[in-house]
Amino acid sequence: MDYYSRQITKLIEELSKLPGVGAKSAQRLAFHIINMPNEQVEHLAGAITDAKNNVRYCKECFTLTDSDLCPICRNSKRDHGTIMVVENTRDLAAYEKTGKFDGVYHVLHGAISPMLGIGPNDIKLKELMQRLQAEVTEVIIATNSSLEGETTAMYISKLIKPIGIKVSRIASGVPVGGDLEYIDEVTLLRALEGRVEL
Amino acid sequence: MDYYSRQITKLIEELSKLPGVGAKSAQRLAFHIINMPNEQVEHLAGAITDAKNNVRYCKECFTLTDSDLCPICRNSKRDHGTIMVVENTRDLAAYEKTGKFDGVYHVLHGAISPMLGIGPNDIKLKELMQRLQAEVTEVIIATNSSLEGETTAMYISKLIKPIGIKVSRIASGVPVGGDLEYIDEVTLLRALEGRVEL
Repeated sequence: MDYYSRQITKLIEELSKLPGVGAKSAQRLAFHIINMPNEQVEHLAGAITDAKNNVRYCKECFTLTDSDLCPICRNSKRDHGTIMVVENTRDLAAYEKTGKFDGVYHVLHGAISPMLGIGPNDIKLKELMQRLQAEVTEVIIATNSSLEGETTAMYISKLIKPIGIKVSRIASGVPVGGDLEYIDEVTLLRALEGRVEL
Repeated sequence: MDYYSRQITKLIEELSKLPGVGAKSAQRLAFHIINMPNEQVEHLAGAITDAKNNVRYCKECFTLTDSDLCPICRNSKRDHGTIMVVENTRDLAAYEKTGKFDGVYHVLHGAISPMLGIGPNDIKLKELMQRLQAEVTEVIIATNSSLEGETTAMYISKLIKPIGIKVSRIASGVPVGGDLEYIDEVTLLRALEGRVEL
């Protein structure tokens, strides 16, 4: 590739390592970056190194944060007796956006997957068990509705139930606004099983 | 967004300013970057600032390069009497990849577009005219086959022809491997008009 300068080739190469960025879009991004104002380029590069250097796990819930404890764990107004278990920080953010959950979270950073060789010790499960003290009254398992998410949910519930703490699972069913015609059979069966009286 | 740390929010914000990167993919990219090894993050951030700080226009053909003259303009083995005019550096790269063109290029950095208010003075056209000295024997116009590209091609040919230099336009027609059934009428007509005897 001697038709681009060394720096452009290098930038295209680095950008195409990112997920979902192919050769063509890396090229497009690279040229866009070169044509951006200097200041904006510095902001972008700075944000990348800044995030990488300053972001760590919350000591309590293991979400990504910039201090020892994340804002949610630090917040005394939240119900620290209700822990919602999620697979990653993006799922935590999804529930936070609803604004209706006032408990705290526990981020597993993965799900049990025998296929990928991810066992209970590869996710933050031991750390969850250590949090289950007297004040915890309920653990809500909000792992994904995938095979791995369900496996993880089952595993966790079997682990916690003997302790005598209430364990619940978020409902699965037809998404709001969903058209029955286009929904898979497993979801339809789940929706039927989980029907509620009106 | 107090559920992410300040740095993550900032990174997502900066990433979502890039073309083709929406809120969801900016979030995915940000978490990927945070989980990348330190070294790789430095390479990415370094490549961004490095490309921005060191890339400039070639004095001769105006492609993006890291020295006064680009490798193609510096190469004495190439035919400096044949200039291919393209809209941008990506188009130059596309032709370089064919490996069959041994002339030099001229990058316009745009095309004439009355709709967008881009006139002949907004692209590197004056600079092209200044390059047309005695040794130049042919100018091949390889602007896109869009309305703007065609307008620019017409404009340039009218400007250069009176000087007595040969001006040509790359052929338009059915792309190789293209199925006639799915090709638009304008292209089909072009292919017919441009038919060559076998």
